[in-house]
Amino acid sequence: MTPYLSTALLTDHYELTMVDAAMQDGTADRECVFELFARRLPNDRRYGVVAGIGRALELLARFQFEDAELEFLRENRVVSDATLEWLANYKFSGTIRGYREGEVYFPQSPLLEVRSIFAEGVILETMLLSVFNYDSAVASAAARMVSAADGRPLAEMGSRRTGERSAVSAARAAFIAGFSATSNLEAGRSWGVPTMGTAAHSWTLLHDNERDAFAAQVAALGVDTTLLVDTYDVPNAIRTAIEVAGTELGGVRLDSGDLPVLVREVREQLDDLGATNTKITVTNDLDEYAIASLAASPVDAFGVGTSVVTGSGAVASGMVYKLVARREGDGDWVPVAKASPGKRSVGGLKYPVRRRDERGVATGELISVGGLPVGDDDDRPLYVDYVVDGVIDEQYTGAAGVRAARAHCAEAMAELPRTARRLGKGEPALSTYYIHDDGSMELA
Amino acid sequence: MTPYLSTALLTDHYELTMVDAAMQDGTADRECVFELFARRLPNDRRYGVVAGIGRALELLARFQFEDAELEFLRENRVVSDATLEWLANYKFSGTIRGYREGEVYFPQSPLLEVRSIFAEGVILETMLLSVFNYDSAVASAAARMVSAADGRPLAEMGSRRTGERSAVSAARAAFIAGFSATSNLEAGRSWGVPTMGTAAHSWTLLHDNERDAFAAQVAALGVDTTLLVDTYDVPNAIRTAIEVAGTELGGVRLDSGDLPVLVREVREQLDDLGATNTKITVTNDLDEYAIASLAASPVDAFGVGTSVVTGSGAVASGMVYKLVARREGDGDWVPVAKASPGKRSVGGLKYPVRRRDERGVATGELISVGGLPVGDDDDRPLYVDYVVDGVIDEQYTGAAGVRAARAHCAEAMAELPRTARRLGKGEPALSTYYIHDDGSMELA
Repeated sequence: MTPYLSTALLTDHYELTMVDAAMQDGTADRECVFELFARRLPNDRRYGVVAGIGRALELLARFQFEDAELEFLRENRVVSDATLEWLANYKFSGTIRGYREGEVYFPQSPLLEVRSIFAEGVILETMLLSVFNYDSAVASAAARMVSAADGRPLAEMGSRRTGERSAVSAARAAFIAGFSATSNLEAGRSWGVPTMGTAAHSWTLLHDNERDAFAAQVAALGVDTTLLVDTYDVPNAIRTAIEVAGTELGGVRLDSGDLPVLVREVREQLDDLGATNTKITVTNDLDEYAIASLAASPVDAFGVGTSVVTGSGAVASGMVYKLVARREGDGDWVPVAKASPGKRSVGGLKYPVRRRDERGVATGELISVGGLPVGDDDDRPLYVDYVVDGVIDEQYTGAAGVRAARAHCAEAMAELPRTARRLGKGEPALSTYYIHDDGSMELA
Repeated sequence: MTPYLSTALLTDHYELTMVDAAMQDGTADRECVFELFARRLPNDRRYGVVAGIGRALELLARFQFEDAELEFLRENRVVSDATLEWLANYKFSGTIRGYREGEVYFPQSPLLEVRSIFAEGVILETMLLSVFNYDSAVASAAARMVSAADGRPLAEMGSRRTGERSAVSAARAAFIAGFSATSNLEAGRSWGVPTMGTAAHSWTLLHDNERDAFAAQVAALGVDTTLLVDTYDVPNAIRTAIEVAGTELGGVRLDSGDLPVLVREVREQLDDLGATNTKITVTNDLDEYAIASLAASPVDAFGVGTSVVTGSGAVASGMVYKLVARREGDGDWVPVAKASPGKRSVGGLKYPVRRRDERGVATGELISVGGLPVGDDDDRPLYVDYVVDGVIDEQYTGAAGVRAARAHCAEAMAELPRTARRLGKGEPALSTYYIHDDGSMELA
């Protein structure tokens, strides 16, 4: 089967039935504002990192209903013929602004604002949420791991623990949050993330003995390579590794065992053998807590798999996409919000800024309700324009977008108060405040 | 950016460095057997459901290194020129057999066996694991929800809570495990999964009032539609719904609130209004436990989102892909296994059967080590051939493959002892036994 290039069916059925019904009752053309946000941070974390917009913009560029998509909708009677015709001409012509990719966020942060007629905006709901929920889950977990690693490099190597395309997104999101590299080659090709890796256990098992495996690897990849030393017995493997490669061996990798103890023993053995520059990489089911517990261990680099690609216990960020305002014709904007228990939302246009003190330390998330700009010179406005009247700003896409997002994430993290880096459960590092039209401030 | 159709870079960097090194030391051509299996079931569950092979076969058909892939590898010096040339001609020519898609599985079940030269098999590791780990996580969770729903239909509607392509895989896997439908249109188009959905809260908020929204929906989609009744006040909404649609309204949907209480109140109100055939669908953060807790409630259908697409607490199945045997030339097979603590594997070829008693009830998972067939007439052999000498058996792909997998899952579930359906933590429903060459049996 040849895969379809259109992204237009990465959409929930009900979005098209709503368009269909709206076409018939004349509400399809009502100008609307949809907002993408999270009501809370998962697992009582201190902050989240938003990721995905660069990918979402590329998916948006391919969000068109071609013959194959229209035929499926027609055959399955998803919508009426009139709506099929409208879909055939669909190309998003509205305006999207939002938080920079790599920005930190808090409960109610209005991460993305989609402004268009109802029919154009409502059908982007699922695609946008899929991207933001997954990519932000990975970036948020990755940022905590980067903090815990305290300057030591982290490589993402969890491709095998998530869907094969999510694996590419995960590598990208982890890199934005400060990881140094990924094992995933497609992420290297599509997004410019540095890739790395040397050998698995199968490499050792393929050979008649460990010595042959190490010798062949060193011969092919050079002395600077990293040898995996826990297939059989670690001390034996270390001895063999240095015999084969010499004391200038690049590194050894440990993928099992009681790491704090093992790492210290391996460091001592390497030093005793004269391999004082040989680095130790550990890759055994690490998450931010395990990384933090190795703070005092002589680990040189971490490889993280399952936990980063699964958001370390929060694989869906809980972001939602809600209609927050609408108007008829050129009339006033009408804020709208549902009243479902536990799922309240705040209607109206928004204008968010990061409040900062005179030293540049973030102190709060201020959201002007109604959309008028607020804030003083120390504050940092949080919205950038991604799509204006249907035209996508390409600077946020591709590998260049990823690099910019990574740089921005580092800056946004540096702004946070030190307490934000605590791994334990607690309140968000910043409180979110609504500023109403009359200037009154309300805790969100 | 136009997406690449080749799947060959959905691969970890180290797989190609191993190929590169193996080309140089002459081990690349050693005949090998790789096995894909899970060491344990997540969260002390009673069984798992394996899914993904139909997708994996389609990805395998596109696993080829075209110019764009080779250029990336060359520019980034991932492998040597000789290896690039080999990759340019790569097309898997080995043999793959394994469990049927939709089969239930247990710890150590040898779910997939890949037999080929080392270089051909090792580079499929990441792609196969990504597919199996995610799809099986969803199918395993979905099967428990199907059990808990006890005959009432379940719709998958979690696309927004997982990566946009994983969403399609999730819809497919949930359908295989017994869900009736999905909200995801691409899953309908690509895999033939029935799609469904009517309206979101934004539909109600778009209109000047709830009555207008309901009336427009009924006008467009007919009286048989399902109205979402919890945007403002449920009893008011129900009254309005029946006034607008009449007592033949198809259904109402509840997406919030204290469901056991609310559902009963809604049923009573509908009955009092004469709408005794109007169905109640609930969709509020359901998982298998919440579904089970509604066993005595007058719910007609369930919509499940986050929990099914995230494997209900186990989003990665923990499956691994290990070299279990190799041989030089036409010599004997040599079983191989690593000895890393907590990560032992059993070497050698395998032949698995489901042991069944004379009434057809499954009593154990028997795995012949060495690969000789075992079992008596009541037993059910578990392997089918998927790829023979590089030729993919198309019957397992596409929508037809999905339908067959769904039917097989229902049969395999029906075979299990009743205790398997318990939702609580416990031992696997079946124990796994190794049968050795000498006929001795060993608990895995």
